[in-house]
Amino acid sequence: MRLLSKLTAPLRSSRPPPFEAGAPPRVWIEGIEPTVDAGAFPVKRVLNDVVQVGADIFKDGHDLIAARVLYRVTGAAEFEHAPMRFDYDADRWFASFSVDRIGPWEFTVEAWPDAFGTWLSDLQKRMAAQQDIRAELLEGARYVNRRADFLQSDVSRQLRSFAQRLADESADVQVRVTTAQSSELAELMLGPLEADEVTRVRPWFKVDVDRPPAAFAAWYELFPRSQGTVPGHHGTFQDTERRLPDIAALGFDVIYLPPIHPIGETHRKGKNNARDGEPGDVGSPWAIGGKAGGHTAIHPDLGTLEDFRRLCKRAEDLGMEIALDFALQCSPDHPWVKQHPDWFHVRVDGTIRYAENPPKKYEDIYPLNFWCADRQRMWEACRDAILFWVSHGVKTFRVDNPHTKPLAFWKWAIADVRKKHPDVVFLAEAFTRPKRMKALAKLGFGQSYTYFTWKNTKAELTDYVRELAGEMSEYYRPNFFANTPDILHEFLQKGGRPAFRLRLVLAATLAPVYGIYSGYELCENVPVREGSEEYLDSEKYQIRVRDWRAAGNIRDDVARINRIRRENPALQLLSNVEFLPTDSEYVIAYRRWLADNELIIVVNLDPSNTRETMIEVPLARMGLDPIQTFEVTDLLVGISYTWRGARNYVRLDPNEKVAHVFRVSRA
Amino acid sequence: MRLLSKLTAPLRSSRPPPFEAGAPPRVWIEGIEPTVDAGAFPVKRVLNDVVQVGADIFKDGHDLIAARVLYRVTGAAEFEHAPMRFDYDADRWFASFSVDRIGPWEFTVEAWPDAFGTWLSDLQKRMAAQQDIRAELLEGARYVNRRADFLQSDVSRQLRSFAQRLADESADVQVRVTTAQSSELAELMLGPLEADEVTRVRPWFKVDVDRPPAAFAAWYELFPRSQGTVPGHHGTFQDTERRLPDIAALGFDVIYLPPIHPIGETHRKGKNNARDGEPGDVGSPWAIGGKAGGHTAIHPDLGTLEDFRRLCKRAEDLGMEIALDFALQCSPDHPWVKQHPDWFHVRVDGTIRYAENPPKKYEDIYPLNFWCADRQRMWEACRDAILFWVSHGVKTFRVDNPHTKPLAFWKWAIADVRKKHPDVVFLAEAFTRPKRMKALAKLGFGQSYTYFTWKNTKAELTDYVRELAGEMSEYYRPNFFANTPDILHEFLQKGGRPAFRLRLVLAATLAPVYGIYSGYELCENVPVREGSEEYLDSEKYQIRVRDWRAAGNIRDDVARINRIRRENPALQLLSNVEFLPTDSEYVIAYRRWLADNELIIVVNLDPSNTRETMIEVPLARMGLDPIQTFEVTDLLVGISYTWRGARNYVRLDPNEKVAHVFRVSRA
Repeated sequence: MRLLSKLTAPLRSSRPPPFEAGAPPRVWIEGIEPTVDAGAFPVKRVLNDVVQVGADIFKDGHDLIAARVLYRVTGAAEFEHAPMRFDYDADRWFASFSVDRIGPWEFTVEAWPDAFGTWLSDLQKRMAAQQDIRAELLEGARYVNRRADFLQSDVSRQLRSFAQRLADESADVQVRVTTAQSSELAELMLGPLEADEVTRVRPWFKVDVDRPPAAFAAWYELFPRSQGTVPGHHGTFQDTERRLPDIAALGFDVIYLPPIHPIGETHRKGKNNARDGEPGDVGSPWAIGGKAGGHTAIHPDLGTLEDFRRLCKRAEDLGMEIALDFALQCSPDHPWVKQHPDWFHVRVDGTIRYAENPPKKYEDIYPLNFWCADRQRMWEACRDAILFWVSHGVKTFRVDNPHTKPLAFWKWAIADVRKKHPDVVFLAEAFTRPKRMKALAKLGFGQSYTYFTWKNTKAELTDYVRELAGEMSEYYRPNFFANTPDILHEFLQKGGRPAFRLRLVLAATLAPVYGIYSGYELCENVPVREGSEEYLDSEKYQIRVRDWRAAGNIRDDVARINRIRRENPALQLLSNVEFLPTDSEYVIAYRRWLADNELIIVVNLDPSNTRETMIEVPLARMGLDPIQTFEVTDLLVGISYTWRGARNYVRLDPNEKVAHVFRVSRA
Repeated sequence: MRLLSKLTAPLRSSRPPPFEAGAPPRVWIEGIEPTVDAGAFPVKRVLNDVVQVGADIFKDGHDLIAARVLYRVTGAAEFEHAPMRFDYDADRWFASFSVDRIGPWEFTVEAWPDAFGTWLSDLQKRMAAQQDIRAELLEGARYVNRRADFLQSDVSRQLRSFAQRLADESADVQVRVTTAQSSELAELMLGPLEADEVTRVRPWFKVDVDRPPAAFAAWYELFPRSQGTVPGHHGTFQDTERRLPDIAALGFDVIYLPPIHPIGETHRKGKNNARDGEPGDVGSPWAIGGKAGGHTAIHPDLGTLEDFRRLCKRAEDLGMEIALDFALQCSPDHPWVKQHPDWFHVRVDGTIRYAENPPKKYEDIYPLNFWCADRQRMWEACRDAILFWVSHGVKTFRVDNPHTKPLAFWKWAIADVRKKHPDVVFLAEAFTRPKRMKALAKLGFGQSYTYFTWKNTKAELTDYVRELAGEMSEYYRPNFFANTPDILHEFLQKGGRPAFRLRLVLAATLAPVYGIYSGYELCENVPVREGSEEYLDSEKYQIRVRDWRAAGNIRDDVARINRIRRENPALQLLSNVEFLPTDSEYVIAYRRWLADNELIIVVNLDPSNTRETMIEVPLARMGLDPIQTFEVTDLLVGISYTWRGARNYVRLDPNEKVAHVFRVSRA
């Protein structure tokens, strides 16, 4: 049940330290959680999440305190509130509220001395010690009258009547005590005796509430131009549409398309990133802009806007959504180059500076100059490109290299788009130093790429996932892509099919959001050259047509793990992970749990050799009896085992079974 | 060398997140240290300390950044600055400055894109790749002209001349490159190209700079009335004065006196805290106020204000100072009770409420009502009592039970006193839950009592000191009293002389500020009753005259450890502690170090049995050769040992030697 606040008296500002302005506070509040950087940035949640708020609240002496959490959709005139309860062992106060609307929320904590409660508690101690309490009852009446004076409302009359009965020296003391202890009076006295008694922390703390898929989704990346069936022929949105049922059957939620815009012709790259293309080369979709338009146009060979809308609609009908790439860079043929040359870096000689990382030159790309004189219009144009696709139904954007554009731009653009469209989610494709990646997440990106592809040993995976699942999880939602068009890790190149299978299980069970780039299910693993993480004949520069049911594919693994993810809530959260000791450095084991849904995942990280080990199960934390047997069922194959005690045996032959995903039955 | 800033252009506010006001920032700054609670409270330092500032600073792309720390005495019109250097491994920027004045300081960080530095670095890469750089030199000239336009000062003319030479297409390219690389130009270009390019974090971060004794001192607590030589006769300030040379010889820095004010007679407590005293009982000094006055008066039996001033002067001549107790409570005979009854809790029947913790009653004490209607005058009167003693030369106050008075009062009173008297230090005597103790330190107490007396096992001591020496050390200065008039721990009661000796070494070498309450050096250890931590015949309620050279005293230990503390800078810091593994749970070993001063302290925590063990020395961190021998000298006894390798043997017989304080010679 929700109550709108009746407390409308003016309250002081009291961001810790709360003493600067107005009356000094009676109660000290600090250590409020969940927060990011002491409240500088919002924490992230999804629709209908329960936000658990904790705070350290105390005052001098032994008096009791009352506290509550205030919360509201940001900008709402009224707030709702939840009483906080004190946890003695933690020496901390807690309350929770749920967020039932997408968009920005805010909360804060307020507290006041519970003078009446203290008096009542003391009264009971005095009575237990057989002390004369008649004078005390008069004191109690005084508190009740003070609150009546403060409230100045209908309640005041009731309070005054209570006060009179407490102070009635002609009445029986026991009757007066009963009055003092009445729950009706307790409820009326729940609040301060005067406005100055309330400490409210300012400013409020922010919570960004997203659609649930922002925090739980399986992604599939594909190049629409490769979705045709005739080798060398440019695929279309209609071809892509025909592929949708198959992708839906594999259990994916989001289909991410690299840029769908016209591609520049000037300095167009050739196959395998050849500096100079040949006639007929299709070029890189990231060289955005051509005769047919820029960031709001569709490559003519893919189809029309109408085709695109139908693709989106069909995906939606299948329970999926289309995510677009958003890459803020232009080919020399982009319309902006002619219309707004001043939006680029104009050199002294009047030419436009192409991308460089001296001495390297990237002549097919012009970076935008975000600090040009006309920057307001330029930033708005970039934002408008997002809004254009939003208006055509796109709600998810995978942002290319956001770390090469100003942080300030993203903060502004994301906030501005989400102001009207809070259901829009941005995925940051930043592979850079950790602090920059974290900053992008803090300032508004709802999901982020990670170093997952480069974490292949047990120690690497354990350390990295622990970091992500810890404090970072308040603002950083990792999207564990197992491969990308740019990253075919050596582990996959050399480990073959077992490597693809085991990395799939890791990605899908270590992070609630994960993805694969098409071809992964076919175990494509040939690099352009030894030592490179680029694919041979990469789709970035050419059309590829595949047999999606080619021998050796791991479609069954994909479909199965996606089904397991949907059926097991424990796999839909990030922070609930506990790594379990095993005796083998090649076997990683971890527990994921949510309420009754208790999973143990065991993966053989060695794609070449059978590994066996004992794994150690934290029986007590899992609510398991140390002596009784319990059942674990491998959801990948549907086979059950009977285990007993903390240490249990597993054996994984990579040519057969790379992992177990056990569901534990407590019965 | 210090430079006053020339940068006077208006700068934007940029407390992270730095985007709210004004122009969006080019550079992102976060994670600034040292700070307490994200800047909500000051960090503590002492005079001439070096403040090392760290920050995470980054921007988009690969451009270089320049950053500096700005610092000043709070309120100063001008600031000084120090350039920050980038540490690649830490991905973090650092600078330091020293604080050469007592009182509040503040610092912040600002940063801007180093466009010219980036250009110069790229130029060198282009030249190394044999690229044509003529056009680039024109770009460089443009940067130089932009800064000239921005500065609009004498420097601008110099800059324009440089720009002209860079852009001079008739000149030899190599000459133009030399111009570009000149250190003179680099210095002129050290700064932004326009004001909007600078991100400065706001508000500034606070540093409280104290006198050095706030962070390093040995305390001695004594009751002046017990300093006479005739049993039963009330000692005086003059008696106390006669004791000073002896105390100075023991090496103490601060002599702390319990309240020296008139003592109430109403409900005066008797010996051993008897509820009703007998005629002739002297009462508790903490029952403050009588016919002769209150918090600004001196107990007539102790002497006059003039005697007190002489006592202070004599202490000062001996290199010590007198610290007073500040206990904000009143006996029923305190002048304020008559003058301002409304400053207390007036009951409905018009009587004043004495102290209670129902059902317990403390009728000899009236607590002040800090939230009375006349609170402004009352708070000022309390502050004025401090200022009174400050005006008579007292600079250190040990505050009795500060946690039973409002946090807001302390914050205000301490700030107000230190505004004019920044050399005043307050020690918080709060034994309460850790968060309240920490809050008192955050809001202004320069030193704090601790749980040290209750930490007697190796695990307890290790955990506790690690906590104190960690993040807490930025704001919490522990004062390790080994005993107090209220705390005679069972460990001392039962462990006898060896217990007193070993706890002395622990207190004096684990915390730079420590103390003993007189009688400790005589190993007084008789409690008022079994199970109590109170002393029998406690000085709190009666006069005690002692033979300060009684058999079994540990004066030599005290003098020696205080001398060792003064001679070894490693013992004058809090955070530089590393616990070393030993094989015995009764032997604790720790390393303390500062530059060349390298100590290893080993203490037998068992006062009853000889303990022997190997201790493990971190050779690499101590700069010791793993094979060569090294010498350790026990500073307590002047004996040297030759050690080799990481594991070395020690044996401690508590009846003889309770500890080693080794100084390590690297030679």
